[in-house]
Amino acid sequence: MRAYRLTDTDRPLLLVEEPDPLPGPGEVVVDLKAATLNYRDTIVRQGRYGGAQRADLIPLSDGAGVISAIGEGVTDRRIGERVTIGFMPNWIDGAFSVTKQAGALGGGFVDGVLAERIAVPASGVVPFPDAWSFEEAAAYPCAGVTAWACLFGGGGIRPGSSVLVEGTGGVSTFALQLAKAAGAQVIATSSSDAKLERARALGADELINYRTTPGWGTRAAEISGGAGVDFVLDVGGPGTLDQALIAVRYGGEVALVGVLTGFGGPVNTGAILMKAVAVRGVYVGAVADLRAAIASGVRPVIDEVFAFDQADVAFAHLRGAGHQGKIAIRIA
Amino acid sequence: MRAYRLTDTDRPLLLVEEPDPLPGPGEVVVDLKAATLNYRDTIVRQGRYGGAQRADLIPLSDGAGVISAIGEGVTDRRIGERVTIGFMPNWIDGAFSVTKQAGALGGGFVDGVLAERIAVPASGVVPFPDAWSFEEAAAYPCAGVTAWACLFGGGGIRPGSSVLVEGTGGVSTFALQLAKAAGAQVIATSSSDAKLERARALGADELINYRTTPGWGTRAAEISGGAGVDFVLDVGGPGTLDQALIAVRYGGEVALVGVLTGFGGPVNTGAILMKAVAVRGVYVGAVADLRAAIASGVRPVIDEVFAFDQADVAFAHLRGAGHQGKIAIRIA
Amino acid sequence: MRAYRLTDTDRPLLLVEEPDPLPGPGEVVVDLKAATLNYRDTIVRQGRYGGAQRADLIPLSDGAGVISAIGEGVTDRRIGERVTIGFMPNWIDGAFSVTKQAGALGGGFVDGVLAERIAVPASGVVPFPDAWSFEEAAAYPCAGVTAWACLFGGGGIRPGSSVLVEGTGGVSTFALQLAKAAGAQVIATSSSDAKLERARALGADELINYRTTPGWGTRAAEISGGAGVDFVLDVGGPGTLDQALIAVRYGGEVALVGVLTGFGGPVNTGAILMKAVAVRGVYVGAVADLRAAIASGVRPVIDEVFAFDQADVAFAHLRGAGHQGKIAIRIA
Amino acid sequence: MRAYRLTDTDRPLLLVEEPDPLPGPGEVVVDLKAATLNYRDTIVRQGRYGGAQRADLIPLSDGAGVISAIGEGVTDRRIGERVTIGFMPNWIDGAFSVTKQAGALGGGFVDGVLAERIAVPASGVVPFPDAWSFEEAAAYPCAGVTAWACLFGGGGIRPGSSVLVEGTGGVSTFALQLAKAAGAQVIATSSSDAKLERARALGADELINYRTTPGWGTRAAEISGGAGVDFVLDVGGPGTLDQALIAVRYGGEVALVGVLTGFGGPVNTGAILMKAVAVRGVYVGAVADLRAAIASGVRPVIDEVFAFDQADVAFAHLRGAGHQGKIAIRIA
Repeated sequence: MRAYRLTDTDRPLLLVEEPDPLPGPGEVVVDLKAATLNYRDTIVRQGRYGGAQRADLIPLSDGAGVISAIGEGVTDRRIGERVTIGFMPNWIDGAFSVTKQAGALGGGFVDGVLAERIAVPASGVVPFPDAWSFEEAAAYPCAGVTAWACLFGGGGIRPGSSVLVEGTGGVSTFALQLAKAAGAQVIATSSSDAKLERARALGADELINYRTTPGWGTRAAEISGGAGVDFVLDVGGPGTLDQALIAVRYGGEVALVGVLTGFGGPVNTGAILMKAVAVRGVYVGAVADLRAAIASGVRPVIDEVFAFDQADVAFAHLRGAGHQGKIAIRIA
Repeated sequence: MRAYRLTDTDRPLLLVEEPDPLPGPGEVVVDLKAATLNYRDTIVRQGRYGGAQRADLIPLSDGAGVISAIGEGVTDRRIGERVTIGFMPNWIDGAFSVTKQAGALGGGFVDGVLAERIAVPASGVVPFPDAWSFEEAAAYPCAGVTAWACLFGGGGIRPGSSVLVEGTGGVSTFALQLAKAAGAQVIATSSSDAKLERARALGADELINYRTTPGWGTRAAEISGGAGVDFVLDVGGPGTLDQALIAVRYGGEVALVGVLTGFGGPVNTGAILMKAVAVRGVYVGAVADLRAAIASGVRPVIDEVFAFDQADVAFAHLRGAGHQGKIAIRIA
Repeated sequence: MRAYRLTDTDRPLLLVEEPDPLPGPGEVVVDLKAATLNYRDTIVRQGRYGGAQRADLIPLSDGAGVISAIGEGVTDRRIGERVTIGFMPNWIDGAFSVTKQAGALGGGFVDGVLAERIAVPASGVVPFPDAWSFEEAAAYPCAGVTAWACLFGGGGIRPGSSVLVEGTGGVSTFALQLAKAAGAQVIATSSSDAKLERARALGADELINYRTTPGWGTRAAEISGGAGVDFVLDVGGPGTLDQALIAVRYGGEVALVGVLTGFGGPVNTGAILMKAVAVRGVYVGAVADLRAAIASGVRPVIDEVFAFDQADVAFAHLRGAGHQGKIAIRIA
Repeated sequence: MRAYRLTDTDRPLLLVEEPDPLPGPGEVVVDLKAATLNYRDTIVRQGRYGGAQRADLIPLSDGAGVISAIGEGVTDRRIGERVTIGFMPNWIDGAFSVTKQAGALGGGFVDGVLAERIAVPASGVVPFPDAWSFEEAAAYPCAGVTAWACLFGGGGIRPGSSVLVEGTGGVSTFALQLAKAAGAQVIATSSSDAKLERARALGADELINYRTTPGWGTRAAEISGGAGVDFVLDVGGPGTLDQALIAVRYGGEVALVGVLTGFGGPVNTGAILMKAVAVRGVYVGAVADLRAAIASGVRPVIDEVFAFDQADVAFAHLRGAGHQGKIAIRIA
């Protein structure tokens, strides 16, 4: 099979020809048809994602394809099935752990999906609706599941809840769509009025341009009748958390998923305490979450689809941050 | 009645003679017998606690006494009943809000309990066991309820859970006792070996001197078999939160209740995300929590009892930070 | 003011002229504009609802109107405000109790809303959107809140969850609408194809006529891919619970709210255990639930509006069971 | 190896000599040292447990022993480790399902532990403290985990919660011990004063002889100050559930685990609704629950230990219902 592997940070991905993987006991082989990119992939490519990392990793975590081989003992999957693959195919359900995290595709020492084939645990794949494209299915494993786990993994939102999503990247666009599907009132932010209009088209009830309104947290609280929003999806981290804490109501929830402004920095811990806010870190989710998220029926927003030989261009497009929704690569 | 009121920050509390309060509809008057101090009281006295504040406030939030008068429409309380008073007597149960917070005694614009009498909503007082002293009952409203809400307000701890409590102040000592009552394994920290020994006498299973072991978070994780502790009670804030995040397991919980190292500062937000930790701000709790906490039967640790005319000495003792458990003032 | 009071079970309601109520401390007077009926009201009228009951009660629990007077100490309501009233106006938030239940309007010893005016606690009323009629607002306190508490008070449903609602009465119609607002897949049952078509118009995804399909539980499980539905709203009680237990998935939830087939009878307790089902009894909900339910924005289905002097006809219409959604009485 | 297999209901267990099991990929072989009996085993032996069942099943679900062989791909277990085995070794964590239930040992088509060796998934075994005997470890998988999941799987109990446990069988004795470990107040019932005294020795705070006090539910509510108990562990089913519903407080919880009085019968569904009780069916629990339950450190009560060749006598002892705690068989 053909696959891309990381090489020196400043050089293009290396296209290699390798033997096809074989399914071990309990595994299936998926012939990959599409993959999508996440901000994490740019950090992995720079070798800056968490701890140690294999230098010549096959990158990307999110893929979808067709089952082409089935290992010993697998009874509930069949050849020809269209499936997407869990971000951590070894986290089926239940509690999170460092071992499960270490199984994340396309990072650390685990090869990812920017290849024509992959062998994964059979319990780690999830079928998707016939009407969906492979690109749509491949949009879910990291960004879709993260948005799902943020919105529904904690206290949960209900019809009429107010939700603030920061920006219009992959996770935030999913969160906007899923929150609307759950009946919430959604406030979207962006530095671009054009992106805000696309957010409105996806259902956003209120829009804030954070470039022209730097106090977007205050503005979001005002919009929500002064008491503050029930839920904030924070994708920025230290650079956005204080405004998120201004936006959220007393006793509300902030899901912390992002590192766009860094892995650490000054935080108004007094506000967390005085407003009794739950700041909940979310690291994607289990295969069970992937199944539940797909069952929502929400069709992902695909920004652009690149050909397999345009993988580096896809990365550059992600770094350009001009996208809205997911950037995909068609593999086959 | 006699009462103490705040005056200039650097001057002693002012002892005044005032008319006795009368019970409004739905209220009771409590003849106060004892009060206890919290770290919050030192900040209130400096005028640094949250927003605006009445200059001549009656300080202290935590008191206990005997009901001496009953207002119109009160049917479930009786004269002579021994009761303690909710920190926010208007937060009976249910969700937190800014309005409920504004009702906290001894802060903002609400007089506290360093007086001989107070009128409060009848639904805001809770009886306590006959065997308890007024000082013990008066230890619960802020510190006891905070510890309770930390331990049992989130996911909850269970027999065998591992709990890390920072220091040996009022909230932490309550948390140590309540966690042991709930069957948890407790790791206690302190800068003083003498205090650690007293923590052991209260049931602490493991002790860490954070002066001699600055990497106490790493040490706590090791003690817990490497995976990290299930629950950390963080009373320090920005100066301790990063070690708390090292101590806690993947998917674990940090209750954030303290401002001992300040109201803000650098935080490792990446760790919150990568370990999927829930950092839950806790601002005391409802009267229902006070009732539940007292039902635990845990007898508070009283460090020292000061006479009413020694109120300033009691404050000085609190600032000296040599205490363990609660500092009380006997009012009558 | 004019009011209807119960008299002998077999005789018409008695129209009486009485003094207007005055607001006590903490109360408001509401000039009632509309009321709606619930199945409970027919049981109350027969004197069969729970324990002892005042013989000449003013019936009905659910009303809406305009605040016309404000009692001492009320600061957050204003004259002229359009409000609906909590089913138990003394259950503001937090845990349920027998005392809260005893405060339910139009039952036991508490007069209800089939009158021109009522005095209630100010904290027990909730404003509603300007665009809504009084009949719509009056539809919420019992049926709307019950449906809300069933769907969102337990584990909660999420986009893509499967929900089975039994019949097309007030609670079930609300549940159908609220479940669709929350993104769920809804299966509706009825003995009437005409009612099923109206359920479809409200968003029901699947329809089962339980007269022609007596094994509707089995059918519902089939429709849900065999594993069973996530959530069943059981309004029947003993006569329907066993089919509900067939319909629900392993680890699923049955909300038990109904007494349409009686207050007791044979139940397949083995199925509750073997399938690890949570059977959750729901007794309406708190004023906080009423506020949250109204915030959903779901407009109630009003079956028919009767004039105040047609109150007995409205009762007869309810007993006829030919309605879908809520039966209302316009008071003024 | 030697193993016992079921034969005709009225005949003794059949002792057979069979080939030793080999570990498949991801499996370990456990050399069994002890097993314990549950009421379920008597029903399985009669062929009355749920659906179809293999006629010559190896019975019993609960065993403990030493790992003697390790299959391909197993990295986290080692030969010589002392382990107990999950009741459903394929239910590691997360949500319950019919598939997981079908994996329960010693029932349906899955051989159990009344044998000298068994091959099970490596992720399905849990180490236990060195100080424990194999009999103690073997007491946990069904009865201990069921008690754990009842007490801590729902809303959870806290120090000071009131808990009613019915009878003194395996699950109830575990529940008594675990509830005390969690700081609860426990009311125990029995038909035997001698058993009640042993319950007191295990920590029970209040005792009710249900033979001399048939209205034990009413009595339990009185003991709890009239409001009712927070939590009831119902092991009886239809014959005890109505008293359980009298005992429990408004908004309280009943865990339904038992079939001692049958798989179905008349239930006061009206009480479930009017008191808003959560009746939660519990079917044992996951391997994660087994790990958590063992971490509690609670040492099981072993009623009597029988030799391997006395297996039929052990069964007779169970049917005699004179035991308290668990009946064990020493295998090797």
